[in-house]
Amino acid sequence: MADSSTSNPPAPEKVPEQTPEQATEQGDAPKGPSKSELKKRAKEEEKKKKAAEKAAKQAELAQQQAAAEVDFATENYGKLPLNQSQTRTGRERAQIRSFSERAGEIVLFRARVHNSRAQGNKMVFLNLRQRTDSVQGLLIVTPEKVSKQMVKWTAGIASEAIVLVQGTIEKVQEPIKSASVSDVEVHISQIWLVSGIDGRLPFSIDDANRPETEAEASDAQFNRVLLETRLNNRVIDLRTQTNQAIFKLQGAIGDFFRDYLKEHGFLEIHSPKLQGAATESGASVFKVSYFKGNAFLAQSPQLAKQMAIAADFERVYEIGPVFRAEDSNTHRHLTEFMGLDLEMTIEEHYHEVMETLDGMLVSIFRGLRDQCKNEIDVVRKQFPADEFKWREGPEGTLKFTFKEAVDLLVEDGVNREVLDDINTENERRLGEIVKAKYDTDYYIIDKFPMALRPFYTMPDPEDPTLSNSYDFFMRGEEILSGAQRIHDPALLCEKMRSKGVDPDSMKPYVDAFRMGCAPHGGGGIGLERVLMLFLKLNNVRRASLFPRDPKRLEP
Amino acid sequence: MADSSTSNPPAPEKVPEQTPEQATEQGDAPKGPSKSELKKRAKEEEKKKKAAEKAAKQAELAQQQAAAEVDFATENYGKLPLNQSQTRTGRERAQIRSFSERAGEIVLFRARVHNSRAQGNKMVFLNLRQRTDSVQGLLIVTPEKVSKQMVKWTAGIASEAIVLVQGTIEKVQEPIKSASVSDVEVHISQIWLVSGIDGRLPFSIDDANRPETEAEASDAQFNRVLLETRLNNRVIDLRTQTNQAIFKLQGAIGDFFRDYLKEHGFLEIHSPKLQGAATESGASVFKVSYFKGNAFLAQSPQLAKQMAIAADFERVYEIGPVFRAEDSNTHRHLTEFMGLDLEMTIEEHYHEVMETLDGMLVSIFRGLRDQCKNEIDVVRKQFPADEFKWREGPEGTLKFTFKEAVDLLVEDGVNREVLDDINTENERRLGEIVKAKYDTDYYIIDKFPMALRPFYTMPDPEDPTLSNSYDFFMRGEEILSGAQRIHDPALLCEKMRSKGVDPDSMKPYVDAFRMGCAPHGGGGIGLERVLMLFLKLNNVRRASLFPRDPKRLEP
Repeated sequence: MADSSTSNPPAPEKVPEQTPEQATEQGDAPKGPSKSELKKRAKEEEKKKKAAEKAAKQAELAQQQAAAEVDFATENYGKLPLNQSQTRTGRERAQIRSFSERAGEIVLFRARVHNSRAQGNKMVFLNLRQRTDSVQGLLIVTPEKVSKQMVKWTAGIASEAIVLVQGTIEKVQEPIKSASVSDVEVHISQIWLVSGIDGRLPFSIDDANRPETEAEASDAQFNRVLLETRLNNRVIDLRTQTNQAIFKLQGAIGDFFRDYLKEHGFLEIHSPKLQGAATESGASVFKVSYFKGNAFLAQSPQLAKQMAIAADFERVYEIGPVFRAEDSNTHRHLTEFMGLDLEMTIEEHYHEVMETLDGMLVSIFRGLRDQCKNEIDVVRKQFPADEFKWREGPEGTLKFTFKEAVDLLVEDGVNREVLDDINTENERRLGEIVKAKYDTDYYIIDKFPMALRPFYTMPDPEDPTLSNSYDFFMRGEEILSGAQRIHDPALLCEKMRSKGVDPDSMKPYVDAFRMGCAPHGGGGIGLERVLMLFLKLNNVRRASLFPRDPKRLEP
Repeated sequence: MADSSTSNPPAPEKVPEQTPEQATEQGDAPKGPSKSELKKRAKEEEKKKKAAEKAAKQAELAQQQAAAEVDFATENYGKLPLNQSQTRTGRERAQIRSFSERAGEIVLFRARVHNSRAQGNKMVFLNLRQRTDSVQGLLIVTPEKVSKQMVKWTAGIASEAIVLVQGTIEKVQEPIKSASVSDVEVHISQIWLVSGIDGRLPFSIDDANRPETEAEASDAQFNRVLLETRLNNRVIDLRTQTNQAIFKLQGAIGDFFRDYLKEHGFLEIHSPKLQGAATESGASVFKVSYFKGNAFLAQSPQLAKQMAIAADFERVYEIGPVFRAEDSNTHRHLTEFMGLDLEMTIEEHYHEVMETLDGMLVSIFRGLRDQCKNEIDVVRKQFPADEFKWREGPEGTLKFTFKEAVDLLVEDGVNREVLDDINTENERRLGEIVKAKYDTDYYIIDKFPMALRPFYTMPDPEDPTLSNSYDFFMRGEEILSGAQRIHDPALLCEKMRSKGVDPDSMKPYVDAFRMGCAPHGGGGIGLERVLMLFLKLNNVRRASLFPRDPKRLEP
């Protein structure tokens, strides 16, 4: 197995070696010497020179000896040739997370070298990592098995290189704090380089995984990795335990969303993102060159999912990208994010929809709390936060009207005149008021003014200045917007015109309602916002694998 | 409940009423009359005029009588006011599919009027539809309950209008062939219009649901609905039983895909569709105006999912839109389709990936066969097709190399010179050869020439003209393409340059491999193609909710 390449070990970049003694000597050099001092020094210099010459001679001799010394371990280490699927043995590759249960066994496994520490020239400790799991590896010079050359080569493997390791799992007396599997270590008998490092790591995984608070408190000791640096080097950043956990949680939210809706009779649909016309409003839509004409990127699946209702699908949901050409450079805006959308027919009242959306969100919260504790705990280490709170039991989710929300803010000292709409700042303030008063991080505001909602929103039956629409909030930030929609083509056209939209510009959409459509409503949540707010990550970019904002299109 | 609007029944568009007798009379009019004939006719005309006058007088009298006659049923029918969520009773709305088990019960349910048939002026039959379920409704004049006026109004409800019906479920002696629930009918006591029709239906749902063969065979009898007409009026077209079933099956494929991958340790990811650079190849990518610059729509999640591997996610999948700016107007090309993609690390050999993809596809086929029989049967009625066949048991899926595929075609008479690549026509021919020889509609071709594959494809370890790549086929058409990828940055750059791609133009992608990356591979299937080929729908547009092609951006 690849012994021909053993003579060509990889050359990982390392700082030149320097013993602690050398460092001290340089640090202690005197500053203003006298004449006798200079004489004394010249003598010492001479002495040193001779000593150095002697040492050099000895080193040369040792090197000659070493060269002459046969490396008996060449079959046990080295760089593997590029894997082009040359062979297939089918031998099991082990998972670190199973090692506690496998003490005494010889295992073969692929892992990253998280870091390494040589002790003298006969021993090297490796921290070996697979995603969020890690184990200590130990390589010691052993007659006929592990040579000094093998230890030296292993000590030179760069952090983040990928190795294939064979070793025996051994119980340890003292728990190994630096590894997630702390009750065993691996005594390495073979180690091979699968993939090396070409260049310098932009930051270490340990630095990237450190709590923000800790990094702030101790600037001198640790390197703080800024969000911008992380995002520029996202592939490395994503390797942290925190990020591995965050994206497991992102996947889990999608699963809980689907599970709940499938149980409640919803069908998954996929609607086109390329649209013939600028949807909803023309202001914030991306234009695409489409053969000899133009297309536009969907700002939501709104039109398509309503058309699916007119097409009798009754209850539909979609998980798909949503595009917003808004030049908003805030902690919570992305130009592309994942929309979790649903639309359903109404039998009597739009609160049927609101309650379904509420049930869906609560089932996501429960799923996260009950099934993802480990991942949440991992994230909490880097992003400490209060547990996310919502009301359960017979009283259910806290709901109030837009008017009541305004009253709460006025009571708290906000001027009523600025509250025609509730801006981001007041939204947050409302979140704090609600948390203090009701001890919940999650609530619904119903009955928004018609003036604040899009043309397809159904007006309130009694007060035409109000609408059958709602927003849902987590920790004082909006995460879901929805409403009953207008299913009557005449009223729809009237509302379009009143909002400056020409019904002819959206003919296929309006036509869908001319051929009979049941009353319906729906809503959409932003996946990244739910994830950010549940975990309190403070920036939506941390909840997006490769985030897109007005200034970022890469990586 | 809405009695005030009873006096304003909706005015559905109907052809002017005409008795069968009148129609016959007009049809029998002579063509070349003589003089005596003309005289005779004048007399008859006079006679008729008098008769008409008499009839008009009688009609007027009857109308006066009717007006005088009190409509005792005004509380039981009429047009409902627009549902703006005025009230909420919480009364159960029933599902037609449950009616067989509920004989004797009074139910309230919303349904479309699929069609109606009046018998005299005292009785009307309605075919009432909910998605793929239908039931017969019967309204008969009944003292104090159902008036003549109510029957007349009901008979005037247009097809595809949505009604709210209350009635008693009654067993019937003879099965009702026109309804999916055939052992009961509903004796209607109340009927309300929820949503009417504004205009003319472009085609009837019955015509749209007819088998193509039947429509072809009997041009005179039935209206054939062309695909173009269907797609222009997709909302109506989607209401057919066939389409309701097709999109249930589309949803099921997504579920089977996810279930298999979750069971095998894959994590769902969402990668951005907006890219900073034209990916893979510049030729067929859509350009987007992005603030003051440009972006490009991802032609696949290829780069992002490989970067997710370099970021240690080990096994990832994604379901998302894929954009291709190819001006291909064929039965199997869309400019936007749903990609079901996966990527995974390799321990030893890329066949690990190929086998995972194979296992995933077979689990989709099994899921469809075992769990979706009803839907498949519904589609088969309109699109007759042989059962889709694949090999199971110890022999497993049929696999051969590109070279062996070429040999099969040459044996069959194709000139070897044209087989550097296998074009669509020869792909189909190969499908027929394989079906005849091995009795399977599903197989894998491995080891494609390097020249036919993208720059990121890993070359074969022994023959550099070949590659570690494969295509999967259903009924002679490609549905999946995949390969081992190059994880070594030096070789990757070399291959990029050899295919005319500047590595600097894709720096974040290339950089991902400089910091260590495990060997890996993957593949992607087109959701619509799998659905089209499993069901033999013959056009991929039938498998897309709102298809997009070079000439279609609406609806």
